[in-house]
Amino acid sequence: MKPTSSTSTPSFHAHHSPMGAHASFTCGAFGAKGGMGIELPGPYPGDINVGFFDADRTLHLLPLFEGSDGSESERYVEGKEGTKGKLQVIQQLQRGYGWASDCFRSECVDFEIVTPFFSLPDPTSAQPAELAFASCPVIHVNVHFRNSTNSPITGLFALGIDHRWSSLGQSTAGEMVGACSQERIGFASATEGANAFIDFDTVSAMNRQHQTPEFLLGPTAGLSIEIGPGESKTLSIVLGFYRQGVATYNRAMGYYYGQHFGSLIQALQFGLAHRDRYLQLAETRDRELAASGLSAEQQFLVAHATRGYYASTQWLWDGTQSVWVVNEGEYLMMNTFDLTVDMLFMEMRFNPWTVRNELEQFVARYAFYDQVFDPAAPTKLYPGGISFTHDMGVMNHWSPAGQSAYEVSGLDRACFSHMTCEQLTNWVLCAGVYIAQTNDADFLQRYERILQDCFTSLLNRDHPEADQRNGLMGFESARTLGGGEITTYDSLDHSLGQARNNIYLGGKIWASHVVLHHLFSLIDSDDLADQAKQAARRSAATLTAGFDPQLGYIPAVLDGENRSAIIPAIEALVYPYVMGLEDAVSEAGDYGDYIRVLKQHLTTILDDGLCLYEDGGWQLSSSADNSWASKIGLCQFVARKVLGFNFGEAQARADRAHVRWQQLGAPLSACSDQFRSGVAHGSLYYPRVITNILWLTE
Amino acid sequence: MKPTSSTSTPSFHAHHSPMGAHASFTCGAFGAKGGMGIELPGPYPGDINVGFFDADRTLHLLPLFEGSDGSESERYVEGKEGTKGKLQVIQQLQRGYGWASDCFRSECVDFEIVTPFFSLPDPTSAQPAELAFASCPVIHVNVHFRNSTNSPITGLFALGIDHRWSSLGQSTAGEMVGACSQERIGFASATEGANAFIDFDTVSAMNRQHQTPEFLLGPTAGLSIEIGPGESKTLSIVLGFYRQGVATYNRAMGYYYGQHFGSLIQALQFGLAHRDRYLQLAETRDRELAASGLSAEQQFLVAHATRGYYASTQWLWDGTQSVWVVNEGEYLMMNTFDLTVDMLFMEMRFNPWTVRNELEQFVARYAFYDQVFDPAAPTKLYPGGISFTHDMGVMNHWSPAGQSAYEVSGLDRACFSHMTCEQLTNWVLCAGVYIAQTNDADFLQRYERILQDCFTSLLNRDHPEADQRNGLMGFESARTLGGGEITTYDSLDHSLGQARNNIYLGGKIWASHVVLHHLFSLIDSDDLADQAKQAARRSAATLTAGFDPQLGYIPAVLDGENRSAIIPAIEALVYPYVMGLEDAVSEAGDYGDYIRVLKQHLTTILDDGLCLYEDGGWQLSSSADNSWASKIGLCQFVARKVLGFNFGEAQARADRAHVRWQQLGAPLSACSDQFRSGVAHGSLYYPRVITNILWLTE
Repeated sequence: MKPTSSTSTPSFHAHHSPMGAHASFTCGAFGAKGGMGIELPGPYPGDINVGFFDADRTLHLLPLFEGSDGSESERYVEGKEGTKGKLQVIQQLQRGYGWASDCFRSECVDFEIVTPFFSLPDPTSAQPAELAFASCPVIHVNVHFRNSTNSPITGLFALGIDHRWSSLGQSTAGEMVGACSQERIGFASATEGANAFIDFDTVSAMNRQHQTPEFLLGPTAGLSIEIGPGESKTLSIVLGFYRQGVATYNRAMGYYYGQHFGSLIQALQFGLAHRDRYLQLAETRDRELAASGLSAEQQFLVAHATRGYYASTQWLWDGTQSVWVVNEGEYLMMNTFDLTVDMLFMEMRFNPWTVRNELEQFVARYAFYDQVFDPAAPTKLYPGGISFTHDMGVMNHWSPAGQSAYEVSGLDRACFSHMTCEQLTNWVLCAGVYIAQTNDADFLQRYERILQDCFTSLLNRDHPEADQRNGLMGFESARTLGGGEITTYDSLDHSLGQARNNIYLGGKIWASHVVLHHLFSLIDSDDLADQAKQAARRSAATLTAGFDPQLGYIPAVLDGENRSAIIPAIEALVYPYVMGLEDAVSEAGDYGDYIRVLKQHLTTILDDGLCLYEDGGWQLSSSADNSWASKIGLCQFVARKVLGFNFGEAQARADRAHVRWQQLGAPLSACSDQFRSGVAHGSLYYPRVITNILWLTE
Repeated sequence: MKPTSSTSTPSFHAHHSPMGAHASFTCGAFGAKGGMGIELPGPYPGDINVGFFDADRTLHLLPLFEGSDGSESERYVEGKEGTKGKLQVIQQLQRGYGWASDCFRSECVDFEIVTPFFSLPDPTSAQPAELAFASCPVIHVNVHFRNSTNSPITGLFALGIDHRWSSLGQSTAGEMVGACSQERIGFASATEGANAFIDFDTVSAMNRQHQTPEFLLGPTAGLSIEIGPGESKTLSIVLGFYRQGVATYNRAMGYYYGQHFGSLIQALQFGLAHRDRYLQLAETRDRELAASGLSAEQQFLVAHATRGYYASTQWLWDGTQSVWVVNEGEYLMMNTFDLTVDMLFMEMRFNPWTVRNELEQFVARYAFYDQVFDPAAPTKLYPGGISFTHDMGVMNHWSPAGQSAYEVSGLDRACFSHMTCEQLTNWVLCAGVYIAQTNDADFLQRYERILQDCFTSLLNRDHPEADQRNGLMGFESARTLGGGEITTYDSLDHSLGQARNNIYLGGKIWASHVVLHHLFSLIDSDDLADQAKQAARRSAATLTAGFDPQLGYIPAVLDGENRSAIIPAIEALVYPYVMGLEDAVSEAGDYGDYIRVLKQHLTTILDDGLCLYEDGGWQLSSSADNSWASKIGLCQFVARKVLGFNFGEAQARADRAHVRWQQLGAPLSACSDQFRSGVAHGSLYYPRVITNILWLTE
């Protein structure tokens, strides 16, 4: 297995997660805490000790624990209960970061963490054996030791946590060795010669003065293996995560893996038994990315984002069916819809049923019908229509039906206001892509009425009177109680944060009408299809007319005042494109004027440097120092693949910048989304960056 | 309700716990974090906001949250998301600390936390309704507001946590208002006019710019109530703790309350419905302590220790029967036997079935039969006999049968070595007291064989050859693998830490023989009774002969060298005494010489100041600055009640010192056990100090 993406530094945190377990073995930043965590908003704050204990009684460890980034090479240290020992931090190491493997290589120790991922079979039709294999909440580790000395050494892998451990060797009668804590996390090995230990810390364990290898009072557990002089050995380990029983609140659901594995130990046993197949799948993924034609930097960004995505995924079972949730990184909101629409491309590539599942959940429980108002006369309410909540809850707390955790009323275009119009477009756009790529006629038939309601709702949010409509959002949801809606860009200024008359949201409204035209045509609703076509033309015309020749771009908000330049003006072109509606995004097509204007728009704002950082990274809005990796990845795809831009060396420069943002600007946050001048400041530990999965289709 | 014990400072943490839920609402130290926690080794690190919001938009709060101990009286503060407001910390307050109530009184706000406790009915015979009432995992709060202004004020109670909340009003259709998090902790009120709020923090909630009272993204939830000008109102609240399903590992058990309450909400409903009866029981306890004749300081120590005990109690259900566990404070070991024997008196007073339950658990799973060796020739092994492990596991991880979490092998009289001999005495002593105080003939019959085995084991640990025995422990358990046993005093020097030839342990061996003599007599095993009597005489004779006239006391270890003076030489007199075996502890009885020598021993070491700190507090060993509140309480009882000491003003001085140790030396650790010169340094957040329950029998 040869991970190929290069990293500018080997020191940064990365997720290592099974699929759908909302769990992560986060590690990789030198001198930092890390470890195995379930449902956490950040890295588990533990110690990771990997290395060896030599005949001189010196402990050599990779710098994957707090305090290990000091400059001293060898020092005396004291364990938690006073046991003393020598410690040498391994300083020379390289990191290979593949799509499904992450390997730290040093002279004597290679530490490889393997996280296979693949299509999750549709639980409504797949065989139990395949579902068990796909849902098993384990990842894999190989620690390879090369003993070039003339004496035996002891190879080590250990985790220090805030809780206590039980011995797996005792509870499985020696079938495996290892340890588990709270029956929630654990590690197991069947490697011949491997032994488990439990103690206060690794220093205490290696220099122990007592004779009880598994000292149950200690918070550190590990595996050791003897390597003879001149020998090499690989310690193979499975790491498992397991949460038993009811995992979510207000609506009781457990993890889907609980349908196949009754305990952590069963999952570990399964992981060991099927290890070869898991490793082969990981190797396939590594090769796939390496052969993608993407640059090393782009490969890194895809691999990093993939890990961020899977860490936040949560495959639940409600008693009768699967429920797919992606949690919102550090914020842990559940199925935030404006993230769903960005992660759509990843899910369509690997498991479209998860998209269907999310769309069905939104209709079943998180849809509502509202009224709207003219912000100039907020007391008079008009019919609005269907839309969907921002999210479905937070930190495993399902919110009440029709209510998100995030949205509050009474705010005028400020963070935490309602995102009603944008979430409406998100349902349409996700449904359109899902139907176009799966040809799921049943879904289309079942949700025909919802699509009609979405169309009506979109029109009503423009203006209640048809002849007053311009194709943008003009009326606010009454759920704001007189306030004003926002977009997903909630922490930016009005250039992207305000929904009304915004050209970013305008683009999504246009795309929604294009999608609806397509879907209504599919079901021979010719009248509605025509109306949708007209609506799309209206949006395109307004956006096209918004182009300011003097500025050279379309200002972000078409209110006659705003002059911000925003890259996401082009964002929504992605939806017709991935649905195969090439005519809609062609200069020669129905919306040719709009497409040409968007090309000019992007050319200007990049050429003029309005939307570029000094390091070459992309700045989404000229008026906000807050640029989101997820949206950059998406808009780069649109620019290159839909609009035909070739950025040449500027592309390579931007990629290098975006790699640095992640590695140096967010070293402790695994994959992060929001950056201010290259430094992460929000949306840490985030799943959304996986928009860049689209690059693999270029 | 009038709590009567005075406190030297109102600022110190205290537990507030239901019985058997291993849960605590820890608060009381000013400027410190606190809150509701389940199974924690220390205070939950949250914010507790109690106070009111006045017409000038100033928030007045009791100093029960981090940062509230500053000297500024009024200041501008900023909520987590930038909302600004005025904050005034209420500086003038008094605290009344009763046995079952803890009340902070200020000019406008009284905050009372009520924690009723009473006899837990025996689950093998009690009625379900009584078991539900006893196990319901709730405590009670009253916040009384007096509005002396001319404008309305808003009374407040709020908790800030690391997780998120759900609205109880929504899920109970308005039957109650409040909030719960993870269906694990929650608070509810049925007070007319009370409303719930959820927001980032209390400052944000009171100064909120949006219009959604329950903003589900926020980590702070609270209750508010309007109080009109000149009005007084009481906000009555129930706080509930609940852990669903399997709570312990390796052996799956859930909380006993789960047999009666299917959810946190059900427990809160029950708590509200039976509030009056709970409050009446608390008042009975408060009155009982106030009428005890104990000094204010002694009352404080009893009340503080009682809270420490209940916080660590865990009433489990294994599927067929109740399992009683007391966790070891910050260390969270389960049923540490050398704590069980100290908490015995509390459990015998309120619920003897818990003692029976612990003894049965030790026999069923944590007993073993070992061999012993002479430390001078450690390779030759002799028959040992039955004994019991130090504990049953740690942090809800049951340890394997016959194994503790704590004990490791290969250590010679150092911390974490085996405590085999002492745990053997603990089973005998607990069983003796249990049988004597309950007359449980069935228990005696069922465990007759165990008692016989204990007797044999005690003798074998003295010396394998009968004529070589001296009544002390002489041989070490082979489980130490050539090491040496320790006693419960594991962090002290050999004066109390070494088991062999130790007069503290010698006293417990003597008491065990006295107990066995009594029990064997009860079942007409005359021969064994005679042998036990001889064994007791042998121990007493050796200990008596150990008295060094020049020193004026018995040195701690009868090895001819040690000269430490230790108070716990007298400790074991408590067991015959509470069993009603007055002859055994009388100067006129069979062991009169021993009793007289112990009197002289204690007189000398206190009069000479060998075992006193400068503040008048008791120092358990003259050679160790590490004195344990639990053992002080126990030995004070023995000194006064069994040996007839009257310390006069020295007693009052010691009590004041011991109060200061807890309040000033352990302000953040609720009730602590180990003190170095009055400062807690270990055994924090501890249950064991409740030995002082014995004072109520003086």
